[in-house]
Amino acid sequence: MVLLETPPTPELLYLCSAEPAELAEVAAQMRSADLAEALNQLPRAAAAKVVANLPFHVAVQVLDEPEMECEDEILALLSEPAAAQLVEAMSADRQADVFRAMPEEQRAKLIRALEPDTQAALKELLRYPPETAGGIMTTELVSVPASWTVEQTLRHISSVGRAKETVYAVYVHDPDTRRLRRVVSLRELIVSDRSVPVSQVGDGRQPLSVAADTDREEVARLISKYNLLAIPVVDEEGRVVGIVTVDDVIDAIVAEQTEAVQRFGGMEALDEPYTRISFVRMIKKRAGWLTALFLGEMLTATAMGHFEGEIQKAVVLALFVPLIISSGGNSGSQATSLIIRALALRELTVKDWWKVALRELPAGLALGVILGTVGVIRILLWQALGWYDYGVHHLLVALTVGLALIGVVTFGSMAGSLLPFLLRRLGFDPASASAPFVATLVDVTGLVIYFSVAFLLLRGSLL
Amino acid sequence: MVLLETPPTPELLYLCSAEPAELAEVAAQMRSADLAEALNQLPRAAAAKVVANLPFHVAVQVLDEPEMECEDEILALLSEPAAAQLVEAMSADRQADVFRAMPEEQRAKLIRALEPDTQAALKELLRYPPETAGGIMTTELVSVPASWTVEQTLRHISSVGRAKETVYAVYVHDPDTRRLRRVVSLRELIVSDRSVPVSQVGDGRQPLSVAADTDREEVARLISKYNLLAIPVVDEEGRVVGIVTVDDVIDAIVAEQTEAVQRFGGMEALDEPYTRISFVRMIKKRAGWLTALFLGEMLTATAMGHFEGEIQKAVVLALFVPLIISSGGNSGSQATSLIIRALALRELTVKDWWKVALRELPAGLALGVILGTVGVIRILLWQALGWYDYGVHHLLVALTVGLALIGVVTFGSMAGSLLPFLLRRLGFDPASASAPFVATLVDVTGLVIYFSVAFLLLRGSLL
Repeated sequence: MVLLETPPTPELLYLCSAEPAELAEVAAQMRSADLAEALNQLPRAAAAKVVANLPFHVAVQVLDEPEMECEDEILALLSEPAAAQLVEAMSADRQADVFRAMPEEQRAKLIRALEPDTQAALKELLRYPPETAGGIMTTELVSVPASWTVEQTLRHISSVGRAKETVYAVYVHDPDTRRLRRVVSLRELIVSDRSVPVSQVGDGRQPLSVAADTDREEVARLISKYNLLAIPVVDEEGRVVGIVTVDDVIDAIVAEQTEAVQRFGGMEALDEPYTRISFVRMIKKRAGWLTALFLGEMLTATAMGHFEGEIQKAVVLALFVPLIISSGGNSGSQATSLIIRALALRELTVKDWWKVALRELPAGLALGVILGTVGVIRILLWQALGWYDYGVHHLLVALTVGLALIGVVTFGSMAGSLLPFLLRRLGFDPASASAPFVATLVDVTGLVIYFSVAFLLLRGSLL
Repeated sequence: MVLLETPPTPELLYLCSAEPAELAEVAAQMRSADLAEALNQLPRAAAAKVVANLPFHVAVQVLDEPEMECEDEILALLSEPAAAQLVEAMSADRQADVFRAMPEEQRAKLIRALEPDTQAALKELLRYPPETAGGIMTTELVSVPASWTVEQTLRHISSVGRAKETVYAVYVHDPDTRRLRRVVSLRELIVSDRSVPVSQVGDGRQPLSVAADTDREEVARLISKYNLLAIPVVDEEGRVVGIVTVDDVIDAIVAEQTEAVQRFGGMEALDEPYTRISFVRMIKKRAGWLTALFLGEMLTATAMGHFEGEIQKAVVLALFVPLIISSGGNSGSQATSLIIRALALRELTVKDWWKVALRELPAGLALGVILGTVGVIRILLWQALGWYDYGVHHLLVALTVGLALIGVVTFGSMAGSLLPFLLRRLGFDPASASAPFVATLVDVTGLVIYFSVAFLLLRGSLL
């Protein structure tokens, strides 16, 4: 037996693939997720050769890994019968993933090579968009009629257990209508009397379920809230059509998290790893929002144009423009991040907007006073130390900056916190309220606030 | 039996609590997570009364819910023996959560009222910080000696199953050293021959495990990557001291997600729901970063001061300052969000910084050219339509803005993408690179780029 001290590299796997027996030994020491990652790093043709020479059940396990990124390309490089045999043995939800990733032509060809049953199940799963319960569910589950005993059910699990995605939740259906009546955990079965009907095991509450078009985020919330290992997906008649398991939900949560951060960063979600996305697709995802924000930000040039006369008379005012407007954007970005998460976690609902406004008003004022004070000190200090000369009216300039900061930061907190509510109210996702979006919104208003304060305080002196 | 058409409200629960039998009926129709949420909404004294009158096992289930937010306050309102009895019956990881939330005095009092065994287990768990494997693990697990058969193991699970956090993973230890030898899933046991030794079930690979001080993010990554239901936490001798289950990991991932978005928004993570945190604590979490960013942004005033002469001569330059520097901040914020996630998902490591730089340089240039073109068109259009007069040198002004945008957006993409690497290299969390942080960094440099381009192009004409 080959014994490895360090994990096998992708290159070693490829070298071994010439000798299937050796490859099998090396692969047996790796977990399938690691094997999948190693294959991702190989050129496609080499990866396909490794897959072709792996023991069949290992190859299936590897292709079943959500970590596997290029299974469509690998399958395309294998002979059609070999590809069909592998796909046939994969779990139903991963089959659907693979087919979704394939170009139309390859998909049509490969699907014809599959068993009629698999074809039918696959066509069913492919109907659902990937961000819904139907899109991440699997059809492999254990469902038994309510008339069975615990003993019968356990024996059934023992016989089919290897083939099913999860055996830890057993779905008990009505023998006639096939409606879902109860969900029993394997744990409850194991600790139960073997002769009891399975319909009497566990608590009698109506089981939780979702529809096939339920958003995956909602599925994740339910699984997480009720600590489930899987949740059944039911059709309109209440019959189970699939289950979403906790591991698929974790993958969905992690994907949502990536989306959330990218969108908060002011771009469309990539939906692909940064390291794999093509240059052109990445630019497209970034340029859209960047241009939209740029067009919005153009209003600052218009606003500044309005105050050109003031700037001409008191250039000193222009010096503090970036400082003041960015402070508003920063406090807005903080408030938005708080509210987006509170809405996502259902700590807040749309009707709570006024509670948030009542909280953010004093919060913005408090933060504004802090920054305003620092700003005033900065100007007076520089003046006193002779580091910069803000002119004879430096006291008034400092006061203008201080008061403008209070106004801008307060406005930033209010706008940043209410924007997600407004977006939801208008039917958009509150998470579209990115940090740059808020900053742009606050920049324009911030300029107006600043120059208005300046106009009020400096009229007759500087202006 | 009281049959409810709509879910019981917190108020109804409180009303029923006068009649424990009625309360038990109403509560039986609710899931414990929902019951916990209802109790969160009641005044503490009312919630404590409901808990006191709930059937004992239901009260324990409710307190076991991570959704429960005020269990420390409720326990404080119960009699000490009642509180101790409830805590005694809770799962070990939740006991630790409750004690962590308690004020020192209450904790010391309550811990003395517990059984010596529970006290010892609890003191052990409380040693670990809450963001580590030790801090989220439970000590309730099924561990059997390698000498047992499948039959013995299954019988053991049936007898202890109800008391253990998860029975779906069984930890097989060496009978002498108690070192972890193998992890066997309940699924594998169920489909195995009953007479086989448990040490021969499943694959023979070294089981995955983590140390008690492993970060919870790393634990989540392993559970998610290898699709585990639980991961064992082992001590230095390789003995299992606890397990982290998938549901605790989901809670940890969701908490990390909230932290990530809040930190990316430019603040310290709240670590408490927005709706529950006190005003003063919230201001503290926000004011720190806001002030730090403000101090950094002050450099813009210094930079602008350097160019006061130029602005005096060509006020038109000041008009585009917000537009240009915010575009740099926006492109930087996009790049940062991409890299933070790619690092978190391990798609990139620190040594890939140059690959990212080689990709962000052309990406920044491409995005800069797009915005620069839009900017030039905007200025020339306004001039042609007579909406604004940028003076006789408007062509040069447009060119200055266009070129400055290319420079600033490129710098923004580069700085935004490399900042997370730099932070990690300096030993900080790359996720400290918030959108406002990047914007501040880019604002100062953006001004220098803009005025340098202006100086080169406009010398002899406007300047």
